[in-house]
Amino acid sequence: MPDSQPGVLSPLGITMGCPASIGPEIIIKYHQHVGCHEDMPPVIIGDMAILKKTAGDLGCPVCFLTWSAGTTPEKGCLNVLEIAAHRPITCSPGSPDEKSGAAMAGYIDTAIELCLNGTLSAMVTCPISKTSLNQAGYYFPGHTEMLASRTGTEQVAMMMAGSKLRVILATIHCSLARVPQQLSQQGLVELIRLGDTALRQDFGIEQPHLGVAGLNPHAGEDCLFGDEEKTIIAPAISESAGSGIHVSGPYPPDTVFYKAVAGSFDAVLCMYHDQGLIPFKLLHFCDGVNVTLGLPIVRTSVDHGTAYDIAGKGIADYRSLKAAVQMAALITKNRQSIPPRV
Amino acid sequence: MPDSQPGVLSPLGITMGCPASIGPEIIIKYHQHVGCHEDMPPVIIGDMAILKKTAGDLGCPVCFLTWSAGTTPEKGCLNVLEIAAHRPITCSPGSPDEKSGAAMAGYIDTAIELCLNGTLSAMVTCPISKTSLNQAGYYFPGHTEMLASRTGTEQVAMMMAGSKLRVILATIHCSLARVPQQLSQQGLVELIRLGDTALRQDFGIEQPHLGVAGLNPHAGEDCLFGDEEKTIIAPAISESAGSGIHVSGPYPPDTVFYKAVAGSFDAVLCMYHDQGLIPFKLLHFCDGVNVTLGLPIVRTSVDHGTAYDIAGKGIADYRSLKAAVQMAALITKNRQSIPPRV
Repeated sequence: MPDSQPGVLSPLGITMGCPASIGPEIIIKYHQHVGCHEDMPPVIIGDMAILKKTAGDLGCPVCFLTWSAGTTPEKGCLNVLEIAAHRPITCSPGSPDEKSGAAMAGYIDTAIELCLNGTLSAMVTCPISKTSLNQAGYYFPGHTEMLASRTGTEQVAMMMAGSKLRVILATIHCSLARVPQQLSQQGLVELIRLGDTALRQDFGIEQPHLGVAGLNPHAGEDCLFGDEEKTIIAPAISESAGSGIHVSGPYPPDTVFYKAVAGSFDAVLCMYHDQGLIPFKLLHFCDGVNVTLGLPIVRTSVDHGTAYDIAGKGIADYRSLKAAVQMAALITKNRQSIPPRV
Repeated sequence: MPDSQPGVLSPLGITMGCPASIGPEIIIKYHQHVGCHEDMPPVIIGDMAILKKTAGDLGCPVCFLTWSAGTTPEKGCLNVLEIAAHRPITCSPGSPDEKSGAAMAGYIDTAIELCLNGTLSAMVTCPISKTSLNQAGYYFPGHTEMLASRTGTEQVAMMMAGSKLRVILATIHCSLARVPQQLSQQGLVELIRLGDTALRQDFGIEQPHLGVAGLNPHAGEDCLFGDEEKTIIAPAISESAGSGIHVSGPYPPDTVFYKAVAGSFDAVLCMYHDQGLIPFKLLHFCDGVNVTLGLPIVRTSVDHGTAYDIAGKGIADYRSLKAAVQMAALITKNRQSIPPRV
């Protein structure tokens, strides 16, 4: 295996995501604009026929190569690892089916296995559909939970990362009404630990400062508008600070992101989905990256969905994939040079 | 009264806010940088001695003039209307007391009266403290409720406005846990009406488009994460659209602000404080303006608080006051040229 030489990174893998999504299109566009110029181009875990058809529809001349695990991907070509059990895929753009769902899950399983055994240095995922995943018999809400299960990881967290702002979410897909009851001191302590570790190991920040947003307007203003800051969030911050982590807050949610962008914090721990995603998407609508914290492998993802409504139309934007690949490469390099905290 | 000539606007009034706050400082700084160059400078309803001391502390040479209601303010000078009943004020920066609270409320009452009788064209308010207001026997949570009461207005709304984004808040100072129960179809319909009227009359937009944010992540995603979009928000939008207002949504909260900034909406109706304030303050940290919708008079405000912690230190930023004065002038001119909808 040429890639196992000291100092030489294994290639990075991109899973194609749902074959009926914009995944194939953004991969072809990424390859055309960026990937074919790289010394170690990423390899695609997906379906050669679908990718060839997509390239044809887009009018992109692409040199396709079948990649075998353990070999060095060919520069200038789109190196594709196919999974025999999931071919052929016959679905049309925008119309996923049971078979495409199984294939999509197969790409992920293969990428995880190759990351765990060192054949791939990191995995970048294109979007999948929860419905298709479940129809294919994979009962996970999404990538993150599937990755946690397959790698035996108990505690993972979602970070959205960009050049201006990083946010970590304490709760994700639950109604606003249920957010307060989902928060716990111990859960936040664990997230602060994961966030601090990621900022140092994955992002190479020697002495990171993590800011924590309050839940309520003005961070509750001395319990005038809610007391979760006093009963849950502040105690979690104190406990974490007591263990040596540079973390502070809870800050009023309407100013903490401005301060983070201005340089006060390396990341903001957010109490709910939109608290973090509203400022993040305002700043990183096209180039945001979803990073899973806590895994033994490196995984980043585009920060958008399957976009079935525009699949096959040639108008998908590949920039989030580009940012996700760059970030996966950066994290991989940082992890290899920075030892974990004892 | 020279200001009542046709085509000549009455002067605009600025209330000094809490005498112990940063109000006096931002007024002196505003006057120095902007106000003294204006053909019709704004008049200050406040305390001459406090303003003179502040100018001295800041080292700003200011020409002070006592202004009498109905006269034309003198260009190049700081024209101050004093209220005999509330002098002298002896409080120090950062230390409000009962007397300063009463004076601060008196400035507001005077400004309202002068706006209602046409002596002033609009009022711009500097920050007050709820605690001081209540200590002085004025039992209002803030300016907005006091203005509604004094002008006999039943329904008012808070808009935060800037050059890039305008947001209207459906709920303001309540805990996040209580937000869902505070929303009602009828309340949202009334806010949509106020928002549409303001965009046309106050901001001069002939055919405004109002976007409405959902409450939950992904706007509930077909009730997967909450059903308020289906039971409350969408019906309010339908009802309003049925009466001829150009309003749409509910949109996923994490992308609606990006779209508004890109030009899709003239304002976004937000379900809670931080949903609107997080994106607004990210874009307008120093130059945001608070506009009260629904009043018979024009009122704008700085979008920051009393900042007692930095009062008297000479480091307060006057740019929100500058933006608030400019916006009050714009709204006044637009209201005079655009008739209300029948």
